[in-house]
Amino acid sequence: MLPESAEDFRTIWLNPDDHSVVQVIDQRKLPHDYSIHELRSWTDGVVAITEMTVRGAPLIGATAAWSLYLASLHGIAPEAEIRTAAAALLESRPTAVNLRWAVERVLARVDTASQDSDLVALTRLEAESICDEDIAICRGIGEHGLRLIEEISARKNGAPVNILTHCNAGSLATVNWGTATAPIYFAHQKGIAVHVWVDETRPRNQGSQLTAWELAANHVPHTLIVDNTGGHLMQHDKVDLVITGTDRTTRCADVANKIGTYLKALAATDNNIPFYVALPSTTIDWNSRDGILEIPIEERDPLELTETCGISNGKSICVRTVAPDTPVSNYAFDVTPARLVTGLITERGICSASEAGLLGLFPEMREI
Amino acid sequence: MLPESAEDFRTIWLNPDDHSVVQVIDQRKLPHDYSIHELRSWTDGVVAITEMTVRGAPLIGATAAWSLYLASLHGIAPEAEIRTAAAALLESRPTAVNLRWAVERVLARVDTASQDSDLVALTRLEAESICDEDIAICRGIGEHGLRLIEEISARKNGAPVNILTHCNAGSLATVNWGTATAPIYFAHQKGIAVHVWVDETRPRNQGSQLTAWELAANHVPHTLIVDNTGGHLMQHDKVDLVITGTDRTTRCADVANKIGTYLKALAATDNNIPFYVALPSTTIDWNSRDGILEIPIEERDPLELTETCGISNGKSICVRTVAPDTPVSNYAFDVTPARLVTGLITERGICSASEAGLLGLFPEMREI
Repeated sequence: MLPESAEDFRTIWLNPDDHSVVQVIDQRKLPHDYSIHELRSWTDGVVAITEMTVRGAPLIGATAAWSLYLASLHGIAPEAEIRTAAAALLESRPTAVNLRWAVERVLARVDTASQDSDLVALTRLEAESICDEDIAICRGIGEHGLRLIEEISARKNGAPVNILTHCNAGSLATVNWGTATAPIYFAHQKGIAVHVWVDETRPRNQGSQLTAWELAANHVPHTLIVDNTGGHLMQHDKVDLVITGTDRTTRCADVANKIGTYLKALAATDNNIPFYVALPSTTIDWNSRDGILEIPIEERDPLELTETCGISNGKSICVRTVAPDTPVSNYAFDVTPARLVTGLITERGICSASEAGLLGLFPEMREI
Repeated sequence: MLPESAEDFRTIWLNPDDHSVVQVIDQRKLPHDYSIHELRSWTDGVVAITEMTVRGAPLIGATAAWSLYLASLHGIAPEAEIRTAAAALLESRPTAVNLRWAVERVLARVDTASQDSDLVALTRLEAESICDEDIAICRGIGEHGLRLIEEISARKNGAPVNILTHCNAGSLATVNWGTATAPIYFAHQKGIAVHVWVDETRPRNQGSQLTAWELAANHVPHTLIVDNTGGHLMQHDKVDLVITGTDRTTRCADVANKIGTYLKALAATDNNIPFYVALPSTTIDWNSRDGILEIPIEERDPLELTETCGISNGKSICVRTVAPDTPVSNYAFDVTPARLVTGLITERGICSASEAGLLGLFPEMREI
């Protein structure tokens, strides 16, 4: 049921046999069940985003764009339907930057279209473009990051390159390839021996439930560990390279990412292990400098920590693991200061984790 | 049902109304259920140790000693029964150092007893001594560590002192007071405002299931966090002090403790936060120097990581959270190098984390 190679792996696509249906991987059921979920209306798209059938910033954006395409299929008043859908999509996850960007991009095309335009063709084209561009960006990250892995592989005479990653900055968070995982998939496709240490990533377990699943689906050797383990592995020469994703990177290259990333960066620095962050340039916040002072850190529902869901006797069950009255803090992200980051892997190339490094790749941002 | 104060808290005791029964807190049921488990024979003691009804090195030792007392109650051949029990206890958890130490200590008393000795009185006295000495050691750690908390409290003008701890080096691992928790309980009893950040401690969740429970039972303010969170809290001045326990400390003060301790020590160092390790001097390995090179790190059952147990609809259930064929590594401990440790809190006082520091407190070990 799964595609044979990473090349053909997709998280969202238009059903080739029925253009009124968009299909996505149902990520709520992973890793226990691989199933395709169908979006037959824009409201299905809103629900898929709200209920985290799809997640990951780029994929949420792509799902929003395809939802507007589904709205355009409305027989009587497609433009009004698109605008209604757009408003509802923007409400579905208000803090998702890519969602807003994708919705506004499709709306801008609708706004400037002539009266007799084919809105179905137009929104489909835009959704396809958004997906194609996301894939191109991830491919760019993959090609540039591949060089790092090739260098280490050569130094190790072809012995497996051990790469540690935290959370899921993988195919499942994008349309394909992922950000942190793209260099890994490119290396694996090229026949370079790689092995990935997958952090469980408490409290939501994106590592054990998503990253481990997609690496297995793409036949990439990997081992699951708890988040506490990375430092020990690094002390014992079992990690050659760390690659993570990021939710937001400042102009000075401070990196906000899933809680716990900072601890891995400290351990990598302490053991002289290269720590790279893979990012599409769209996640750079050119207006912010000091990440620790300026980036607000979301606190999420304590239930993420106090309840764990899984399979028992073939059934999906959630169990409470903590005494009911235990006070809980659940910070979702932390900030890794640039001084702990060896480099940034972007779609334009690799640069040092500094303002100068970033401006070298993105000179058009000098005056911002 | 629980005692009113930490002073009266005990994990193991002889039933005052029936001297043929030893009682322990059933730690398998925490935090969901506080219940007393009865040991009516030495085989009950073996099972309690094997099934982790009791855990924590000092408490395992105390349980073994009390099991030999229960063996001495055998009407016909008490001495033979004690020796049979001793052999079985040593087999129950072969790597538990305190268990061997306690068994050998009781056996040595039996060996040197005269033929007409009362073995019941003798083994009871020895078990009571082992418990009393453990309490005295933990009290010593508590009194010395209290000074650190008092100093921080004074500097903060009485605002709560925020202390982060990892795993359970608490009352539940000892007979009372714990090691890392003893200074906290002493401060709380003295009316100093403290607040404890409790690391969940994956994969076995000793923090969320044991430390959070015992702090609540002793009315100490605390907040549960995932293991990924400590670094973020330290960056934002929300941690004043870190105290952990240790399983083994080398002569040069490298500290082996629950996996993930090293990551917290790195974060504490990066944020200039004092990082202390509380230890009974019995856990110092005077023959070992470099902890990273010399201390073997146990790998445990992957099930600890892939299954999570808790409560669903009032029933205890274990769920599988990971795909069945996912490769897993489960290292139980890591080593924190002495350079990251601010100081060691022992029953004799506080010293720097160095050979010189330790020998200052334990001069009799100079020639070993």
